[in-house]
Amino acid sequence: MTGPVPAATVARLPGYLRALDELAERGVETTSSEELATMTGVGPAQLRRDLSWLGSNGVRGVGYEVLRLRGRVAEALGVGADQPVVIVGIGHLGHALAGYLRSEGSTYRVAALVDADPDVVGTTVAGLVVEHDRHLAEVVRREGAVLAVLATPVGVAQEVCDRLVEAGVRGILAFTPVALRVPQGVTVRSSDVASELQILGFHTRLPPPR
Amino acid sequence: MTGPVPAATVARLPGYLRALDELAERGVETTSSEELATMTGVGPAQLRRDLSWLGSNGVRGVGYEVLRLRGRVAEALGVGADQPVVIVGIGHLGHALAGYLRSEGSTYRVAALVDADPDVVGTTVAGLVVEHDRHLAEVVRREGAVLAVLATPVGVAQEVCDRLVEAGVRGILAFTPVALRVPQGVTVRSSDVASELQILGFHTRLPPPR
Repeated sequence: MTGPVPAATVARLPGYLRALDELAERGVETTSSEELATMTGVGPAQLRRDLSWLGSNGVRGVGYEVLRLRGRVAEALGVGADQPVVIVGIGHLGHALAGYLRSEGSTYRVAALVDADPDVVGTTVAGLVVEHDRHLAEVVRREGAVLAVLATPVGVAQEVCDRLVEAGVRGILAFTPVALRVPQGVTVRSSDVASELQILGFHTRLPPPR
Repeated sequence: MTGPVPAATVARLPGYLRALDELAERGVETTSSEELATMTGVGPAQLRRDLSWLGSNGVRGVGYEVLRLRGRVAEALGVGADQPVVIVGIGHLGHALAGYLRSEGSTYRVAALVDADPDVVGTTVAGLVVEHDRHLAEVVRREGAVLAVLATPVGVAQEVCDRLVEAGVRGILAFTPVALRVPQGVTVRSSDVASELQILGFHTRLPPPR
């Protein structure tokens, strides 16, 4: 297939990558769309369509070569490229995220931590000294960061977002319960625990299947 | 419209609720699908379809009554109902989540915290004493918890998930980079920071719009 890869397909690629990593670790050389589908909880037909966007078609009766397919998915996601990330807001959540991203053999390099609280600025978190929010633009440019994680209080989220974009950030992962406004060409993904629980709450109140 | 509400529609309801809360706080009495669409980043036609699932159709030339629509969305999401949540895994992330959910005037009642680490069990986090993982089933039943947050190390995530489901949990918000297997009737939503960054990484490497 040609044209831009649908956003829903992109959102499933990390799951495929994890499944392929697991197969590779187990020394499995070929896999089927059925096996990958089971591992990732996606329908086999959907999975085949998704992978065809990457130009990867399984061979009938053989399936997919694990390492080759892994390489394609990783390349599409930019895994292996040096992708510096700036985290803004080093409260409990920012702290947890910094630790997580710096410990899991992550492909993302947490390049800098930024906070506005004088009690937090200058402290060392996950091996990095927290820098002052007033230097945010400088930090983003110094690190060449295209990705940022926003874990500030909700009241300043839009303002910090605007300054990140102004400084050159093009992808923001926001842990805030507000929709951030960004210009075209900038992508925001929001992760909000309260919203996730509301969605789960809806589904758990449906009658159980008969 | 009749039948089960599509999962994608459910996933957009928390955003509508936040927008309606904001309008209500500002004292706005009626709103239009265009205004709500702009506030939430959803197309107006999509928004009207979503709301029609709740039996809420705007009145042509008038729009939607803010408080009435807010009530419908809140009711659908179970906001206001007492929904006890158990958090399993009280590392940095579990700690942050407990603090967040207990501080934001959240509609979710964090009922219990559970961890397996003897250094963590017995400590007080966000006003609750952390209980031992060996009592997990007991804790879930005692609190009548239908929702759980899973923030354990990845290696034990599936096992803890199985025990939560066995004890009666029907909705799990998982902060783990693995797909959890659950029986029909149980819903899992996964939030994984590394995956979110991979998805952002993909989008930020697309050529900027001309």
